[in-house]
Amino acid sequence: MERFLRIDMTGKTAAFEPVPDRYKGRAGRWLTSSIIHDEVPPDCHPLGPRNKLVFSPGIVAGTAAPTSSRISVGGKSPLTGTIKESNAGTGWGRRLARLGIRAIIVEGEPSGGPLWLIRVGADGVKFEPADPWVGKRLSEVYADLYKRYGDKDRIDICAIGVAGEHRMAAAGICFSDQEGRPSRYSGRGGLGAVMGSKGIKAIVLDDTNAPGVTLADKDLFDTGRKKLTEALTSHDITKPKGALNTYGTAVLVNIINEAGALPTRNFREGRFEGAERIAGEAIFAGNKERTGEEIYNHACSPGCIIGCSNTWHRPDGSEHTSCIEYESDWALGANCGIDDLDRIAEMNLLCNEYGLDTIEIGGAIAVAMDGGLIPFGDGAGAIKLIHEIGEATPLGRILGAGALTTGKAFGVERVPHVKGQNMPAYEPRAIKGIGMTYAVSTMGADHTSGYTIAPEILGVSGKLDPLNPDKAEVARNFQYATAFLDSTGHCLFIAFAILDIASGFEGVIEECNGVLGTDWKLDDAARIGKEIIDIERDFNRRAGFTELDDRLPEFMTREKLPPHDAVWDIPAEEIDEVLG
Amino acid sequence: MERFLRIDMTGKTAAFEPVPDRYKGRAGRWLTSSIIHDEVPPDCHPLGPRNKLVFSPGIVAGTAAPTSSRISVGGKSPLTGTIKESNAGTGWGRRLARLGIRAIIVEGEPSGGPLWLIRVGADGVKFEPADPWVGKRLSEVYADLYKRYGDKDRIDICAIGVAGEHRMAAAGICFSDQEGRPSRYSGRGGLGAVMGSKGIKAIVLDDTNAPGVTLADKDLFDTGRKKLTEALTSHDITKPKGALNTYGTAVLVNIINEAGALPTRNFREGRFEGAERIAGEAIFAGNKERTGEEIYNHACSPGCIIGCSNTWHRPDGSEHTSCIEYESDWALGANCGIDDLDRIAEMNLLCNEYGLDTIEIGGAIAVAMDGGLIPFGDGAGAIKLIHEIGEATPLGRILGAGALTTGKAFGVERVPHVKGQNMPAYEPRAIKGIGMTYAVSTMGADHTSGYTIAPEILGVSGKLDPLNPDKAEVARNFQYATAFLDSTGHCLFIAFAILDIASGFEGVIEECNGVLGTDWKLDDAARIGKEIIDIERDFNRRAGFTELDDRLPEFMTREKLPPHDAVWDIPAEEIDEVLG
Repeated sequence: MERFLRIDMTGKTAAFEPVPDRYKGRAGRWLTSSIIHDEVPPDCHPLGPRNKLVFSPGIVAGTAAPTSSRISVGGKSPLTGTIKESNAGTGWGRRLARLGIRAIIVEGEPSGGPLWLIRVGADGVKFEPADPWVGKRLSEVYADLYKRYGDKDRIDICAIGVAGEHRMAAAGICFSDQEGRPSRYSGRGGLGAVMGSKGIKAIVLDDTNAPGVTLADKDLFDTGRKKLTEALTSHDITKPKGALNTYGTAVLVNIINEAGALPTRNFREGRFEGAERIAGEAIFAGNKERTGEEIYNHACSPGCIIGCSNTWHRPDGSEHTSCIEYESDWALGANCGIDDLDRIAEMNLLCNEYGLDTIEIGGAIAVAMDGGLIPFGDGAGAIKLIHEIGEATPLGRILGAGALTTGKAFGVERVPHVKGQNMPAYEPRAIKGIGMTYAVSTMGADHTSGYTIAPEILGVSGKLDPLNPDKAEVARNFQYATAFLDSTGHCLFIAFAILDIASGFEGVIEECNGVLGTDWKLDDAARIGKEIIDIERDFNRRAGFTELDDRLPEFMTREKLPPHDAVWDIPAEEIDEVLG
Repeated sequence: MERFLRIDMTGKTAAFEPVPDRYKGRAGRWLTSSIIHDEVPPDCHPLGPRNKLVFSPGIVAGTAAPTSSRISVGGKSPLTGTIKESNAGTGWGRRLARLGIRAIIVEGEPSGGPLWLIRVGADGVKFEPADPWVGKRLSEVYADLYKRYGDKDRIDICAIGVAGEHRMAAAGICFSDQEGRPSRYSGRGGLGAVMGSKGIKAIVLDDTNAPGVTLADKDLFDTGRKKLTEALTSHDITKPKGALNTYGTAVLVNIINEAGALPTRNFREGRFEGAERIAGEAIFAGNKERTGEEIYNHACSPGCIIGCSNTWHRPDGSEHTSCIEYESDWALGANCGIDDLDRIAEMNLLCNEYGLDTIEIGGAIAVAMDGGLIPFGDGAGAIKLIHEIGEATPLGRILGAGALTTGKAFGVERVPHVKGQNMPAYEPRAIKGIGMTYAVSTMGADHTSGYTIAPEILGVSGKLDPLNPDKAEVARNFQYATAFLDSTGHCLFIAFAILDIASGFEGVIEECNGVLGTDWKLDDAARIGKEIIDIERDFNRRAGFTELDDRLPEFMTREKLPPHDAVWDIPAEEIDEVLG
């Protein structure tokens, strides 16, 4: 019997309650967005008592379905003011599902005072003061919490770093990976600041003696699980020793650079002369040189059979950081003009330690560089800047508030954002479909809201010309499909396989039907996805957003991006057609 | 023959052009808002090349009409993203009118490079590099410019300080007063940053051999001028040695405090225990004690017969600063919990020196105090903070970006703003009509957009209960009347007299008809005012603003304001009725 766990931080109470009928079958993003839509006044201040923070594992999380341990976190974003769902791959999501908790709803507001640790187990909920861990690096916090609450086989951890403690709009929520590292993030949109505003430092889950997930139809579930597994293990991108397992997501550096769409030096150029030096291939080769071994990537969460998480090693062969995602590599590298993997690794590590969204921080540093604070390419200087954030100095507070605030502070017009969220690692002037996705996303500029890069660059599910502006339909379909996938608990990366291999997609639907006892067909994925997007858009509309917010920044319509010398030239009417 | 002067900073060209027929008769705010509406894309970046900066003197500026030397400055605001008009009292407006220039339109963008001085005279326009004056205090800049271009009998100066050079969103545009002080500001909305983005340090006007203003009907004009003069010199608020001439606008400190509406310590309370020590009466008494004289106030601009500008003196009797307006006194005093006039005077002086809006800066410091940066009441600390702005340190850049950005940097929810502009010195929870004005103003929270304080507190044009929420009509009427007055060139303070003395209002209309040859009746004032507001609202609508932006911040609906323990409780529908 699945339940909601409602935690009210005003009085520090925790209460289980039945899942209302109207939410039956909803999970992950579908559920977090539904609860935020229904319970949070859209005009509330994101850091005030009326905002809520909702955690929900996906439909098949906690089962034997492959690559399915995503946890969705929802709230009103302090970065964008929109509704926000941000999901991460971690055993934490799996444990929450196995505890029979469909969602944790955090509400209320502590009247100042200290931060708290919350431990949730099959035996109940416990609050403890977090004072000893306030201001510390997350690696120290995690090490202590594993000592205090049980080792990594028994518990997983969700916590904020100093960025969240200081309510910075670029603060993420950090989850443990399988090795217990503080490295998997619900990174975007500043949900770490919301968690900080609620007075929560960490939530520890222990699923000892948990009931586990009940399957409505085990045979059907197994049929689906096997189809999906077959697809994932045979597709070139997702199979063992395939592109992701060998080079990680950073395999994209050379590919996007070749396409002239790797945003370089704060989106001034589309091609980076140092791309090869920071690419996934360079990470693989560098690790081999430093450790003497060919190191294939690992899974961030139990049950993942893709295994895309890399590790970067120091010259002496010791581990430096994990994982350097493509987005982080680009944000802290090419976008800042930095081509030194050791510097990028250090910046990545510090973001993990301080609890920061790497994309937003790379964007903020790039904007500050554009404003003359330090030169593009100054890796040592950029590392110092991230320490400033960790120390919450005034300069650190500017950067920690994100790229748009940094632009405001330094008087810089060139801020590549939509709705206040910095664009990720794909130049919309050179890849038009992803630009339409950024524009209409319910959460500001976000590649994970509709990864049209698959057909526009990677040739997955067909091949489209990235410079062709006729992308309304693909942008729409990807948004809907993604919202559905974000609700299943599956990692978005299964999309590479299931878009090309139809039986894989069937498998996902069968898994869901096997868990829920539903009778969904393939078409239901788009129906459910649309329902989710509509819920989110309704929230945003009531929060004051209109189609005029679905626009890319003006400078992209004027400044030509080398090497294609393209500008952003999609007419407003075509953008408004994407979601209607 | 009146002309426009169009200055294109891309190529540093200046060209005179005829006033288009559709703009005939428009001046001041009416004209700046018309040109911004017609020529500036509403979605442009305020600091980018597509924004423009427009200067226009009012209809009767440059004539013998009393208290009529206001200059309107218009643009898209970097603080709010809305259209903006901000006017100041200065001989500069009078000289522009006498030069026969109906408006200066600044456009384009220098490609980086140095800032420029522009001198405009009857003999033409000249550009000179401003390098020697970049980074200097405005008192130094002004002193040098008077030496270079002529003394204060011959020229007036408009310039930005270091805040505008750094494109800070709280940067104002500073005009000379009659003594040549850098002290009269188009303060609000960050138009100083727009001037900085255009590459202009200063515009010097020399009206030697200027044609002057042509009157269509001198007799009618004189009739009106005399009626207005009679009203101003007989009303208790505006007459010689009346309230304004004796105590300045700071006469309001005790009055608003008594009403429980003096926002104290970042709008946490409505009454300040130190009010008497910073009130206009205390300024008058302190000056007398320090100089041995009863000092009545002076006029900021030629032809003003109210003379409300005070001067504060140091213990040794020397001048410290001029003028400490009520708003500045409150923003830098009560709102920061500071009750020491010498500290407030120093802060006021520094804002004048660095080119800052005192209201926004007082608001930003108060928010930072609320976030724990320094304690409320720490005058020495607050002075240091303003120096940080002047030095453009990271902390200074946060504060210089305004209260909302400061709140974002410090994670503070309690930011008393509308559309990103900090509220001025009247608590909307205690004075409901001014709250409705803040909400619907086309420029963010702004008392000068509709000064309902007149009837709600001062008993001018009747007496309304400030706590009575039924204020839609008065808020509407004041918005319209104000937009009209802002177009005449008259100071808004004539409203005290002409609202109570009908012949004064008649006089204003007769003056306008005398200048323009029009046949306006009393009713035309509201018609023209509505037309102006409609133009501004249309710009804002196309910039993405909706009725959901016409709201006060959420915390005011929750937090009770002592001493009345009132919350902001005007329903949204009633706010939306104000302007329809």
